Amino acid sequence: MAREKRTALILAGGRGTRLWPLSRRDRPKQFLSLVTDRTLLEDAYARVAPLVEASYVYVAAEEELLLRARPLLRQVPLVNFVAEPAARNTWPSCVLGTLEIAHRLGREATVLVLPADHAVRDEEAFREALDAGYRRAEEGAVVTFGIKAERPETGYGYIKCGEAVEAGPPAVRRGLAFKEKPDEATARQYVASDDYLWNGGMFAWRADRFLELTRECYPNQFKIVRQLKGPLAAGESARVAALYERLEATSVDYAFMEKVPAFEVVETDCGWDDIGSFDALERVLPRDGRGNIRRGEVYQLEGVGNIVFAAGGRPVALFGVDNNVVVDAGDVVLVYPKGAGQDVRRVVELMEEERADLV
Amino acid sequence: MAREKRTALILAGGRGTRLWPLSRRDRPKQFLSLVTDRTLLEDAYARVAPLVEASYVYVAAEEELLLRARPLLRQVPLVNFVAEPAARNTWPSCVLGTLEIAHRLGREATVLVLPADHAVRDEEAFREALDAGYRRAEEGAVVTFGIKAERPETGYGYIKCGEAVEAGPPAVRRGLAFKEKPDEATARQYVASDDYLWNGGMFAWRADRFLELTRECYPNQFKIVRQLKGPLAAGESARVAALYERLEATSVDYAFMEKVPAFEVVETDCGWDDIGSFDALERVLPRDGRGNIRRGEVYQLEGVGNIVFAAGGRPVALFGVDNNVVVDAGDVVLVYPKGAGQDVRRVVELMEEERADLV
Repeated sequence: MAREKRTALILAGGRGTRLWPLSRRDRPKQFLSLVTDRTLLEDAYARVAPLVEASYVYVAAEEELLLRARPLLRQVPLVNFVAEPAARNTWPSCVLGTLEIAHRLGREATVLVLPADHAVRDEEAFREALDAGYRRAEEGAVVTFGIKAERPETGYGYIKCGEAVEAGPPAVRRGLAFKEKPDEATARQYVASDDYLWNGGMFAWRADRFLELTRECYPNQFKIVRQLKGPLAAGESARVAALYERLEATSVDYAFMEKVPAFEVVETDCGWDDIGSFDALERVLPRDGRGNIRRGEVYQLEGVGNIVFAAGGRPVALFGVDNNVVVDAGDVVLVYPKGAGQDVRRVVELMEEERADLV
Repeated sequence: MAREKRTALILAGGRGTRLWPLSRRDRPKQFLSLVTDRTLLEDAYARVAPLVEASYVYVAAEEELLLRARPLLRQVPLVNFVAEPAARNTWPSCVLGTLEIAHRLGREATVLVLPADHAVRDEEAFREALDAGYRRAEEGAVVTFGIKAERPETGYGYIKCGEAVEAGPPAVRRGLAFKEKPDEATARQYVASDDYLWNGGMFAWRADRFLELTRECYPNQFKIVRQLKGPLAAGESARVAALYERLEATSVDYAFMEKVPAFEVVETDCGWDDIGSFDALERVLPRDGRGNIRRGEVYQLEGVGNIVFAAGGRPVALFGVDNNVVVDAGDVVLVYPKGAGQDVRRVVELMEEERADLV
């Protein structure tokens, strides 16, 4: 099939303050340097670059974030930066990106959708999975990627898988259902079973299949998709924006994947992490001999299991404290006990009331 | 006696980094605002001001620190700022200050020596003790002040007391000996006994008695003291500096109080604290409902017993951590477990190697 038209659509939009105080409304996670000296967005590009040539990489986000992304991804042609008229979750992003790619490269192009704010330890395994995903998509499948669950994570979505389509590696299985964030007991069952994989929010399809299936399975949205095509090609941004407003502001998993008659799951064990909080950095960054993660200028005596982020251009010194998270963002300092990362949002809520300028 | 010549000699010298990262080599503790919005030096002045008119207050320190002190104590005549040619502990400071006061006001003036970096909760009780000290000094006694020991503090010096000279309150007792920082067991014995009081480093004497007793009990130093008189009066600073170098660089307790035939101790229970570390702030600052001390812009959810100092002009946010000390000095952040304040010096040693500019 159209192997020469393998494209990557990096979703660089999305806001969030889970990594507050480093992440802010106008500087979301994908623009932070958490794992390497590069931003997560640059990491995402670098991971896929060996598979996809730069001119076939597309980046979708609201214009404000695109302008922030642009200097980080100079290799990507400017014309491949797809401006979302508004932040409306991943379904509208996927529609816009897929239409744009189909317009530019033809409907037989394959679209690989990748988030811009995740971490992957084993990039080789990751790319092997992507390669299998491209291949399956080229054959007409709608594909997602399921990451072998390493722990009963209640913050992730899961994909229930059925029979094998390809033995692999990487194995490709029938997808049965998407499961939203489970409770602890359910998550334990999922991890114990081979049939539940983490939903990494990555997808692949041929543009023509995406459009066909939308027409078949999601007809009310397809009407809008069809109307979008002309204005998008003509650059009529006011018209595009008006239509974009009418696309359902939901995730592509829910809007599309769950509606199509069949989807496939490429299974991978690539050390994927969505870095939902600073706590997650333990899993993706090397620890010192006492299990501490230290980024930036950190001076520590004693103390084990701390995660310290000196990102304010000033040193952080500590001694004697264990399992603390200390983040200096330059204009505010946050301290909390490791494992409580979910509660950062509560501090953010407090700050929204007290110091909205810092959120 | 010469009640109209009651003077206060505030010792504003001394360096130290026990309160690092707020205190630095060139910004020692007395120049920090730890207890009130004023610096400890200003607090020290304000505490004694109701007893001593401003023109009778003297401030002794190395010139560099005097220049820092000057804008804080505009009420005190500039001529009362006594420049120490070098930092040589409290004995030389007391010699210089007492000679200066004797020269200016006459040898019958009473000198009350006060450190500039302590905290006092009950200022009324404190001033009652000072008043008694002045009175005893005016009658010829060499006086120190003993603070009722509240806990078996091993970081303080103690004064062993004997029979009562005045029943009080405030009681005045014979002083028997100075005891340096005791071990834990000894400190417990001291606290259990009524005969051991904390040495607050405060003293009072009539200038003439100080000089007589120095001549009698410390003759080799008296030779230098006598030679200092003329050059000091004449402002011959090179000559003063040369003689100052020959004064023993030791504490006035050790050099003088322990040598005189008798000294008296005014007993007080004034909530005195030398604020040896941030941990001490619990004793002198109001706590919130959960036992937290918060200075500056601090946002906290949950967590008990923390001491948080946002002194960097930026907020500090925390949640879920207990009994932590968090200090933001603006150019560096320090985190340690409450109670480990003695170990801050070890971090300072590390920083001296790694970032001497921050010490």
